[in-house]
Amino acid sequence: MHKVIFDTDPGVDDAMALLFLHQHPDIDLLGITTIFGNASIETTTRNALFLKNAWDIPAPVAKGVAETIDPARAHVDWPVMIHGHDGLGNIGVPDTVEGEPDARPAHRFIIDTVRAHPGEVTLVAVGRMTNLARALAEDPEIVSLVKAVVIMGGAFDVAGNITPAAEANIHGDPEAADIVMGAAWPVTVIGLDVTMKTVMTRPALAAIAAASGPRAKLLADISDFYIDFYAHIVADGMVVHDSCACVYVVAPELFTTRTGAIRVVCGGIADGQTIQKADGRSFPPSPWDELPSQTVCTDIDADAVMALITETLSRA
Amino acid sequence: MHKVIFDTDPGVDDAMALLFLHQHPDIDLLGITTIFGNASIETTTRNALFLKNAWDIPAPVAKGVAETIDPARAHVDWPVMIHGHDGLGNIGVPDTVEGEPDARPAHRFIIDTVRAHPGEVTLVAVGRMTNLARALAEDPEIVSLVKAVVIMGGAFDVAGNITPAAEANIHGDPEAADIVMGAAWPVTVIGLDVTMKTVMTRPALAAIAAASGPRAKLLADISDFYIDFYAHIVADGMVVHDSCACVYVVAPELFTTRTGAIRVVCGGIADGQTIQKADGRSFPPSPWDELPSQTVCTDIDADAVMALITETLSRA
Ligand SMILES: [Ca+2]
Ligand SMILES: [Ca+2]
Repeated sequence: MHKVIFDTDPGVDDAMALLFLHQHPDIDLLGITTIFGNASIETTTRNALFLKNAWDIPAPVAKGVAETIDPARAHVDWPVMIHGHDGLGNIGVPDTVEGEPDARPAHRFIIDTVRAHPGEVTLVAVGRMTNLARALAEDPEIVSLVKAVVIMGGAFDVAGNITPAAEANIHGDPEAADIVMGAAWPVTVIGLDVTMKTVMTRPALAAIAAASGPRAKLLADISDFYIDFYAHIVADGMVVHDSCACVYVVAPELFTTRTGAIRVVCGGIADGQTIQKADGRSFPPSPWDELPSQTVCTDIDADAVMALITETLSRA
Repeated sequence: MHKVIFDTDPGVDDAMALLFLHQHPDIDLLGITTIFGNASIETTTRNALFLKNAWDIPAPVAKGVAETIDPARAHVDWPVMIHGHDGLGNIGVPDTVEGEPDARPAHRFIIDTVRAHPGEVTLVAVGRMTNLARALAEDPEIVSLVKAVVIMGGAFDVAGNITPAAEANIHGDPEAADIVMGAAWPVTVIGLDVTMKTVMTRPALAAIAAASGPRAKLLADISDFYIDFYAHIVADGMVVHDSCACVYVVAPELFTTRTGAIRVVCGGIADGQTIQKADGRSFPPSPWDELPSQTVCTDIDADAVMALITETLSRA
């Protein structure tokens, strides 16, 4: 069993990833920590509670921070054209839902949970890296207590999606991502290099919903709006960015990887870009030196990944 | 016939490119303009004159600038471990050689020559972009008078070679490259994405020299040291970066291309990185907006390119 804390900004593809984690038999979901990004922290936390209720997820929800690690960064409008005004595809999530988040802020929840299960917890982070960076600042020793960090974010050998240089999760808090990827814990980064190859079609999602009941039906409803947005990129389907990170936890053999130190550009036209110095390549002294070697996914067995997602979402 | 001005910092692979231009029957080499980079401006200009004499090249040599467009940029040591202390593989180029450069500085030579042949001149630039940026500053109208600009430089979907982010020619003067690639003349950029696929082996170069006489023999001697340097990257051969740009002039069909605005990162850890916003991709407002669409080479028929280089260098 993989003990997982899911750091997330639901968010449509976040919702699919959450259902995958909840339904996969080898995942023990210890907690859901929220972050702003696809919507405000109030909205993403409300949405996490909404999905927890709808899907009977026992894991607690802990509310994350509301601003970037560098508070001087300008606020960017929420991407309502992608995730809807409610952050879940405009399905009409109630303003208030049952239940309360954990009393602790997300970064404190992460620290406590990691310390309760030393060497056992995998952090799956599919939003901005702010909570993880805050946890590192408050308790640097967790780097040796976390089993693994799996991130959905970045774009290494391909263009970004929020700028030609940067992917949205990393662009949303580059300083936090630079801290997290530069820390001495084992990080695997799953970026646009591979996620853009994973498409869930509308008919496929409808088939899952028809075969497996109300949980998948809700997911299909949530995803409808997002699929409309993606129409300019993929035909009648959605890229399942966040689910790829969850698949990596249980099936890393479906990914091709490259190791090396990672830096995140902070500021300038490439703000938020992820750049890896591949192990084995030599350069004059550079800002990548002395940093731990991390893992970047460069390719993916997309058919197998989609089959595993389909199988997992289809569980009753 | 393609009228060409060759802007170069010889430099070993520059020497091969120069011999290619001189010997290709469809190239009319109007001038050689020098730039610092592989060695000082004094050394690269001396080397250009040395090669002009050795190979009976009628085109004049014009000496370029000695500092970056932004004079505040720090000087970086010359790469003597790659090109030798004499810039030509330590073959022992004499300190002084016969002949004098043109009386005009390189950027003035470019302007005058372009104005003498409106719409006809292709600028092939295989060093830092400083001379071209200076020419643009002094006479902005040349953007509509130059036929084409072909650049060896940059790294788009692959890592750099002087840093994980940047290729050496562009890293040597990022501000100049940003000016040149952002100007409203047709630019094609041939970077590490394609040049790293072009390898001339030592036996192949020796065979060319044996078959075709003293010009190629000198080239093989010059290249020996550079091939030793490249031993950690390719087996007994050299990447022929600069020659690729020359091949593009006569055989663009051997390259796969992508169009879109290009920006060069100036400053920070990604200093000198080239980033293209591909046409057809949409992003929120960004620093790539309103810039002309330029051409980036993303793939190459390496076998055909090497065959054309071999054939051209082998001409008696
Ligand atoms: Ca997300
Ligand atoms: Ca050169």
